Amino acid sequence: MAKDYTQMWSNIGLNLKAHDGLMAVLGDAYKNIYLAQKNRPKGMDYFDFVISEVHGLRIEEIVDAKSSGRKVIGTFCVYVPEELVLAVDGVCIGLCAGADVGADEAEKYIPRNTCALIKAFMGFKLAGLCPYVELTDLIVGETTCDGKKKAYEIFDEITKKVYVMELPSKKGPDGRNMWRNEIGRFAEKLEAVTGKKITLEKLQEASKIVNAKRKALQRLSALRAADPAPISGLDALLVNQISFYDDPVRFTAKTNELCDELEERIKVGAGVAQKGSTRVLISGSPMAIPNWKLHAIIEGSGASVVGEESCVGERNFRTLLDEGFSSVEQALDKLSERTLTIDCACFTPNTERLDNISEMVKRLKAQGVIHYALQFCTPYMMEAFKAKKTADATGVPFLRIETDYSMEDMGQLGTRIGAFLEMIQSKG
Amino acid sequence: MAKDYTQMWSNIGLNLKAHDGLMAVLGDAYKNIYLAQKNRPKGMDYFDFVISEVHGLRIEEIVDAKSSGRKVIGTFCVYVPEELVLAVDGVCIGLCAGADVGADEAEKYIPRNTCALIKAFMGFKLAGLCPYVELTDLIVGETTCDGKKKAYEIFDEITKKVYVMELPSKKGPDGRNMWRNEIGRFAEKLEAVTGKKITLEKLQEASKIVNAKRKALQRLSALRAADPAPISGLDALLVNQISFYDDPVRFTAKTNELCDELEERIKVGAGVAQKGSTRVLISGSPMAIPNWKLHAIIEGSGASVVGEESCVGERNFRTLLDEGFSSVEQALDKLSERTLTIDCACFTPNTERLDNISEMVKRLKAQGVIHYALQFCTPYMMEAFKAKKTADATGVPFLRIETDYSMEDMGQLGTRIGAFLEMIQSKG
Repeated sequence: MAKDYTQMWSNIGLNLKAHDGLMAVLGDAYKNIYLAQKNRPKGMDYFDFVISEVHGLRIEEIVDAKSSGRKVIGTFCVYVPEELVLAVDGVCIGLCAGADVGADEAEKYIPRNTCALIKAFMGFKLAGLCPYVELTDLIVGETTCDGKKKAYEIFDEITKKVYVMELPSKKGPDGRNMWRNEIGRFAEKLEAVTGKKITLEKLQEASKIVNAKRKALQRLSALRAADPAPISGLDALLVNQISFYDDPVRFTAKTNELCDELEERIKVGAGVAQKGSTRVLISGSPMAIPNWKLHAIIEGSGASVVGEESCVGERNFRTLLDEGFSSVEQALDKLSERTLTIDCACFTPNTERLDNISEMVKRLKAQGVIHYALQFCTPYMMEAFKAKKTADATGVPFLRIETDYSMEDMGQLGTRIGAFLEMIQSKG
Repeated sequence: MAKDYTQMWSNIGLNLKAHDGLMAVLGDAYKNIYLAQKNRPKGMDYFDFVISEVHGLRIEEIVDAKSSGRKVIGTFCVYVPEELVLAVDGVCIGLCAGADVGADEAEKYIPRNTCALIKAFMGFKLAGLCPYVELTDLIVGETTCDGKKKAYEIFDEITKKVYVMELPSKKGPDGRNMWRNEIGRFAEKLEAVTGKKITLEKLQEASKIVNAKRKALQRLSALRAADPAPISGLDALLVNQISFYDDPVRFTAKTNELCDELEERIKVGAGVAQKGSTRVLISGSPMAIPNWKLHAIIEGSGASVVGEESCVGERNFRTLLDEGFSSVEQALDKLSERTLTIDCACFTPNTERLDNISEMVKRLKAQGVIHYALQFCTPYMMEAFKAKKTADATGVPFLRIETDYSMEDMGQLGTRIGAFLEMIQSKG
């Protein structure tokens, strides 16, 4: 990091000693996994910088934003509409936690058999290691899975600032009505927290910002269809992870600059891997920063990850908001409709996801699907059964991985993934 | 069993050899756990008989009912209103499966890390061991937890007769509206499946039958407040388990006969244990037949289980249906309202359950709470945190158990429960 943020971290209330340790580990991991890659696009320099300042400059920006009267809204899920947060001049921060931190503390509150992501957001808070959660004025949960739904009750006892949106389990008329009303209530809650009014103009402006971000991410996704892939899966994953906490306007500009460079690469047939190297689609649970484990293993084996059918990936940007609204109520309708196009495994049935897996395999010319479920992530673990049938029908091999954030199974995963990639290559 | 049902089982399509094995194991377990008890009420003879004919006489009755044109509706959850099934002359059968059966087969479809109850209902079907599921005309699921919600999708691929009701996650106006509409749609579905019309008269009759059953179970629960307990927890659990699949009118009469006898016992101070023996409340996940493991360990250690804060227990009968309705629509309103008084951990928040734990501890004079969660049953595992705080506030010790249907941890559980009971006695 460029400067000494110790005083800022101390003001925020972090556990300084443990935090120093975390930053050192993160820095080493980044160096070994990211900076060691070959043929990286120049445009990744910005994202390297963002990561190097993940608890530094970005936190300083947020502290400054708070000083100027803006509120910080933490979220965990792509169903929570960022547009509404921006419409009250809020700073929207994805709080998902991707590291094995504070698990011992977390297990005093929640079961051992809890998915790593939930354990991490509890653990980061309990260990005093997340500046973002400390700076939030409101933490927005949702009822997407049993684990989060019930953990939020406990998280609220700890933080006193959790607000939970009720997502239905089916996309029928009653579920749509419920969710539309939840969007309306969330808008009111944001107005109450910030003291600002959500207006049509504010919503139009916010929609432009978030749609532009989605378009940049769509553009990045589309470019990964080229052979050789112009960017590594690791780098593309990182850009997607950063989309959840960076300033959205700056992020969009930088992502588009990166895409300009990737287009140039594609024109001259340049890429990060050899032309014809094995192409894999990842499908399943979200990979919160700094969860780079699966991509690192796959790309370390010489294959390319060409897409993420995931919340940290395609689910986040697949659908744009229809900006054809002329009142606040209409905008809320459109926000509700857009979010309900998202194909999370929390819905039953969730056939859209199966169609999307098939579409991504074809568009991105993936030769195999690796289904990634966080251990104890029941919705995705269960849906792997149907995802496999889809891969079978699409004609590509399917490998099912269940893992967490620990490094203990790296060897075993490496062996299984290596065998899977060899099998694809031998199919030729 | 009284006679040879081989032909019937063969007609139903069971795996005869495996089924013989299951019946033998079940018979042995029943003998060792149930028939070995001392001081059992005479009224348990009926329930012993029902168990001895669990796949015999009761199945014959259901086969006969089907021959006479009645339909069989399988359910898994106390949120599915039995009254509606009876109003179309249906036979309502709780399909929950409580034994470690067919797990290897089930794991081809669902994850290893699935709760034992879900694995069992898949396993029983896949292994061809459940005559009830084979005889159903409709299997009714609900979105109470991630595991069931997603497993029903797969179960429907296997059975082609699953219908899923959407239960909300909160009890607000939109959730109530959704559930009320689901009740209406379920009524329509039952009419379509049976070709019978749900009328006010039919609903009044059905309500009387189901409320009478609930009152009998309430009476049984109330009698367990006596010291010494007039009936073992094992026997009371069995009565509750049988309430889900026996003929409701006969069941009610037999349960009331049992209660008459228990009242006589209480008058003379007789019971199944010594006066002053340690009293325990069980709280948590349902115990489907033949899941008697926890009660067997506790009562084998000399303590009495005096109540089940569980779906197979108090959650099933705590609230009566308000019979003050004068139209079908009003009846559906009342059915919706009654079911939403149920305090399942699938709801957020679920403070009613905490109040009910405290109420049961006091009413039943429990000296400790043993929280029982099926492994991977996230809602109850998570809610154990708040249940413990409630026990602390109520002034009774709390022990948290997570287990499945295997017998492998019997020794370990016995040690932990023994230490817990000793701790209560030393406080005493």
